[in-house]
This record gives sequence, structure tokens and C-alpha cells, in this order.
Amino acid sequence: MSLTRRQFTAMGAAALATRFSPPLIAQATTDKPVGYAIIGIGRIADHFIDGIQHSPNSKVTALVSGHPDKAARYAEKYGVPKSSIYNYENMDSFRDNPDVDAVYVALPNSMHAEYTIRSAKAGKHVLCEKPMCINVREAHAMIDACKQANVKLMIAYRCHYEPTNLKAVSLIRSGAIGKVQSIQGAFGFDIGATEWRLNKKMAGGGPLMDVGIYCLNATRYLTGEEPSDLKAFASSDPNDPRFRQVEENLVWTTKFPSGILASCSTTYGSNMPGYFHVYGSKGWIEARPAFNYDGLRLLAEYMDASGKWVSLDEPNLVKDPYQFTAQATHFSNCVRHNQTPKTPGEEGLRDMEYMKKLYSTAGIEMLA
Amino acid sequence: MSLTRRQFTAMGAAALATRFSPPLIAQATTDKPVGYAIIGIGRIADHFIDGIQHSPNSKVTALVSGHPDKAARYAEKYGVPKSSIYNYENMDSFRDNPDVDAVYVALPNSMHAEYTIRSAKAGKHVLCEKPMCINVREAHAMIDACKQANVKLMIAYRCHYEPTNLKAVSLIRSGAIGKVQSIQGAFGFDIGATEWRLNKKMAGGGPLMDVGIYCLNATRYLTGEEPSDLKAFASSDPNDPRFRQVEENLVWTTKFPSGILASCSTTYGSNMPGYFHVYGSKGWIEARPAFNYDGLRLLAEYMDASGKWVSLDEPNLVKDPYQFTAQATHFSNCVRHNQTPKTPGEEGLRDMEYMKKLYSTAGIEMLA
Repeated sequence: MSLTRRQFTAMGAAALATRFSPPLIAQATTDKPVGYAIIGIGRIADHFIDGIQHSPNSKVTALVSGHPDKAARYAEKYGVPKSSIYNYENMDSFRDNPDVDAVYVALPNSMHAEYTIRSAKAGKHVLCEKPMCINVREAHAMIDACKQANVKLMIAYRCHYEPTNLKAVSLIRSGAIGKVQSIQGAFGFDIGATEWRLNKKMAGGGPLMDVGIYCLNATRYLTGEEPSDLKAFASSDPNDPRFRQVEENLVWTTKFPSGILASCSTTYGSNMPGYFHVYGSKGWIEARPAFNYDGLRLLAEYMDASGKWVSLDEPNLVKDPYQFTAQATHFSNCVRHNQTPKTPGEEGLRDMEYMKKLYSTAGIEMLA
Repeated sequence: MSLTRRQFTAMGAAALATRFSPPLIAQATTDKPVGYAIIGIGRIADHFIDGIQHSPNSKVTALVSGHPDKAARYAEKYGVPKSSIYNYENMDSFRDNPDVDAVYVALPNSMHAEYTIRSAKAGKHVLCEKPMCINVREAHAMIDACKQANVKLMIAYRCHYEPTNLKAVSLIRSGAIGKVQSIQGAFGFDIGATEWRLNKKMAGGGPLMDVGIYCLNATRYLTGEEPSDLKAFASSDPNDPRFRQVEENLVWTTKFPSGILASCSTTYGSNMPGYFHVYGSKGWIEARPAFNYDGLRLLAEYMDASGKWVSLDEPNLVKDPYQFTAQATHFSNCVRHNQTPKTPGEEGLRDMEYMKKLYSTAGIEMLA
């Protein structure tokens, strides 16, 4: 059997989607594709657009950018008509563009709320990158605006659509590792001095909001519980000019209602590959790397139902577009079939609330 | 070249000891061995006694036990005269036994203070297992009693004498991984229902005092700093009869004065192999397992002084007795040459103070 990469990836996406929404994916292949306006053509948008190429029910139909040359290049590459290139001023006129069903908001964090709300007001469904926004107030405003406009809002928590993470969740739910006791997670990188992420007005916060959020969110989907309490410490090197506005390091612990405890760590000062360990009464699961675009690896040891000791080592052979494809396909399904996304605005709101608590216990104020 | 295991281990111990106390180990080989009374012949004592067999300056000369048959078996095996077998009532009479220079206290935690103080009063130097005792008050009393009696007090923090951990410390101090940002650690096991460790009066606390202490102490020797603040969460399954008295799980974060942050985790509900990760601005170090008696493994990636990228993977080929041998040799050197041990009573006292803070922030009271 020989498949093109596109066929293979589409198959994978279908198989994955089936796992959590069996009736939807079957329809997906016959649906009219959902047309996306990409708002902000940066690094993450590249991955999203690449992912969309393999989705059976999604397509890029418009671009919103402050760089006309770049937008023109992308338009040509992806077959977007010139009339569907917008800038940040005239974007709202896509209200009248029937090819735009939804938007993908891939701007710096501080712009997520404004562009989500403007898109909703233009009648477009919104898939917004994480972190959802820069504070709890904005998160509420985004949810309200989308409700008001009767459009879907989904936060691009791509790990919810990624097979390694999904397998970890499914192993835990099946009881393979027994009663979960303890989760450890970490994610960080050594940030370049010119990144917008270091500007608090644009980013809202430091590594917690950018990459720590993966660990925070993972502790929630791995446990299937909402934290009952959280506390953190933060630190910044006063002599490192990169950290005049946002924290350099942050560590935290989370308590869940069932008694599961988590300890996590994030940084902008060190290349710290994302991972999580989950320890249960009967075994353990580890993903490392856990949050990358590709090359993920799942390790586990546990007793299966027949009493056989299982020692798992699964490198994820499915490359880069896979989770982005599954994510887009899922949202498009929700749009076409009026379903609530797996990671709706409320999912992002909760993380904003937990991050607020973490920053507060670490003595850091979020932007109002 | 062919060496017996004993020669090999003794060489290794000498090489290791040289690293931190060059003048002492040379003398050690000509010293009259320090004679140890082993107080409590349990699992850990077996490792200690095994380790001592390979030490050039240490020897088992007496046994203190509540089980006469077991004591007799050990005495025969290790050439201890019957007259040097004691029980917990008559132990103090070893004051007049010139073959006993020191004691090794390997009893349940709650007995550490009493037997350390009685030994000091009998004029014997004390090597006491971790945790040093069950609260800060006892730690002070032990230190005071040993000062008063002019005997040495060392806490058996064996990782301070273990090559994998020492190499990690030495790599960090050499600047190999740059400025340390973040440390993560964990250690726990699924405890049997009949262990004395589950009895708060005997243990003083749960996994934090028993195995979490390895992570706590590691964050201190890896950073070379003392915590400026710590906070924790604890949890116990109310339906698990094992955890009626001590905590099941505990997670915590530590802030160090330089800004290094640590997040750690311990449990009695899951087999959680001890590890630590250290992330710096220029590389990382990981030990896993980090705290076992043998089979330790050190992984690291960093740039060496010549700008060459180093990818390290060092399984520790030196078996079980090694760290116990080095530990005993070090203490015997201190006894013979009137030196302060690398892990004196004050080292144990600090951990007691930090654990008090952790328990307090987790809402758990230590025994008075």
C-alpha cells in the first residue's frame, strides 16, 4: 500500500477525530470546507496553514496582515484571491465575504481579545491561539461577544487534538496506571532578546502565559479535574535586560479535588523541553517531548487488563501538520454541525483564572 | 589488570574521597579503623555494614538490637565478639568498650534523637540516618548533646558521597550549564500497609521526611544555596487506610536567593523513581535514577570550555556499596582527624526547618 503524505495525514486526522467525535468526521469529508481568514501571518500561522492543507473540511480563504508583500506571497501560494487580503484597519469588511466562515487569530496575546471580538461582530466563528488573552476580564468579553453574535469560539489548545497527548489521557481514563497520585511538568526556552513576548503590554506575562500554560492545561486534561488550589514562585535576573517586564522563571504546585497533586516549572532562561510525568498507584506515563509540533514520545509502564506488564515506548511518527490538521478539522466540524468545540472559550477562561491565581501568589500583577 | 571487587571498590572510594578531602584519604589507609556500633539492624544497616567492609578506615565492632538471634547472626558474620552485642536497655554500657569509637543510628526516625543523645553521652561519635529526627527541637538537642560531649555528629546524607550526584554538582559549579534557572525533582514509592513509616509517632511524617527529603536536600547541594522560601500542598486518600496518620502525597516549590526555582514531588502512593533535572542558561543535567543505592545514571548536554557540544550519558557502574563506603570512610576520617563532616548535624537541622515550613504551608502539624 502506498499513500501520499497528504492521504496519510488526512487518514490519520480522520482516525483521530473519530476517537472523540465519531458522527462528525464522517460528515466532514462531504462538508463544504470551512473558509478561514488567517489573522496574523507569523510562525504559528505557518503551522496552522500547513495543517489546514490536509484537512478534509477546512481551507484558507482570506488573509489579514500588516505586511502587504507577505500577504500577497501567501495569497499566491495558497490560492487566496487578492480581494480577500485584508489589513488590520479594513478587516471588518470581511463581514461581506461569503468565503470567510471563520478566523484563526494568531496575533500577539494582547490583540487576541480585540480581534476575536471584531471577528465575532463580523459574524465569523473564531479559533483563537493560546493564551486566550491577557486577563480574565478579556476572556469574559470574548466569550460574551461570541455568544452575542451566535458564533463558535474555540481556543487553539492543539494538544487536545494531538495523538500522544490523547493516548496519555486515554490510558489514564482506562485505569491502566491506577489511581493517579502525582504529575510533574515543565516547558521553557531560552528567549531571544528581541521577542515581543518580553513586552508585557503585548504578551500579558512571561513564560507562564506562553509555554507554562501547556503544563497547566495538561494537568487539567490528564486528570480530567479542575484545580482546587494553586500557588507559585517567580523570579527574574535583575541584571538580565530581557526580564525587565515579564518573569524569567515560574514554578507552581496545583492541588486537585481527588487529591492528585502537580508540580510544574516554566522558564524563558533555559531550553527546557516540554514534558509531563504521570504517576499512578499501578504504573506511570511520561511524554517527552510532550508539547512539540512533532517528534513526541510516549513512555509508560503498567499492568494491562490480562495482568501482563506493559512497557511502552511510542515515538510519534506523525509529523508536524498532524495535530494542526486535527484541530482545524474539529473546529470546522463544530462550525458546520453546530457543536461546541472540545476546547471552547470557557477552557481558555479557566486557564486565565488559574494563571491569575498563580501570578498573584507569586507576587506578580496581571495587566488590568 | 585484575582487581578483586573489594580492591576496586576501595580504590573507587579513595578516588572519590580525594575529590573533596585530599589530605585525609591518604592518612585513612594507615589509620586505626574507626569501630562502629550499629544501632538497629534493619534494611539500611545492611547496606551500611556492606559498605563498611570495603572502607579502609572503618569497621563494625558492636551491635545494638532488640533481636538477640539476629544480632548473634550478624556478630558471627562480621566477627563482632559476643561481649559487644547490646540491646536498647544496656546499650549505654558501650561507654566502656574501647572498640566502639562511633555509632551508626539506623532506627525509626522518632528514635534518632534519643539514641544519638545517649551515644554522645557515652562518648561516642554519631553517624545518624536521615531524616535526622522528627522536628526542629530534637535536631537542636542532638547538636547540643554532641557539642557538649565533644563528639562528631554527621547525618547520613549518602548522596553527598555518591559519584553521580557529585559529578552533577561539579558540572554545575564549573559553569558547564551556565546560570541555573530551574530544578525539578521527585522521589516516591508505593508503600506497604504494615510499614512503621505509616505510624506518625515513629516516622514523624510521611514521604516528605522519608524520600522527599532527598529532593529537598538535592536542590540545596545542586544550587549550593539555602532556600529563601518554600511552599507545599499535601493530600491523602481518605479511603486508604495506609494514610490515616501521615500524608500520601506532597508537592512543593522552593525559591533560592539567586532566583533559582525548584519544583518537587513525593509520594507513598506510587513507585516514582527518584530523579532531578537541572536546567541552566547553557545546558542541562539530569540524574535518573538519582537517589538509588546503585544503577544511577547521569545525562547532560552542554558546551565545554573549548566550545564543543557535549552529550553525556553516564550510567554509574559502581555498585551498591560504593556510596556507603565513601560515606563511612569520610566520617571515620573526620573522627580520626578532628574534622567537621561534610553533612554535619546542622545540615540535618536545616532540612528539618525547611520541612517544618513545607508541612506548615500544607496545613500539616509536625509532632512537638
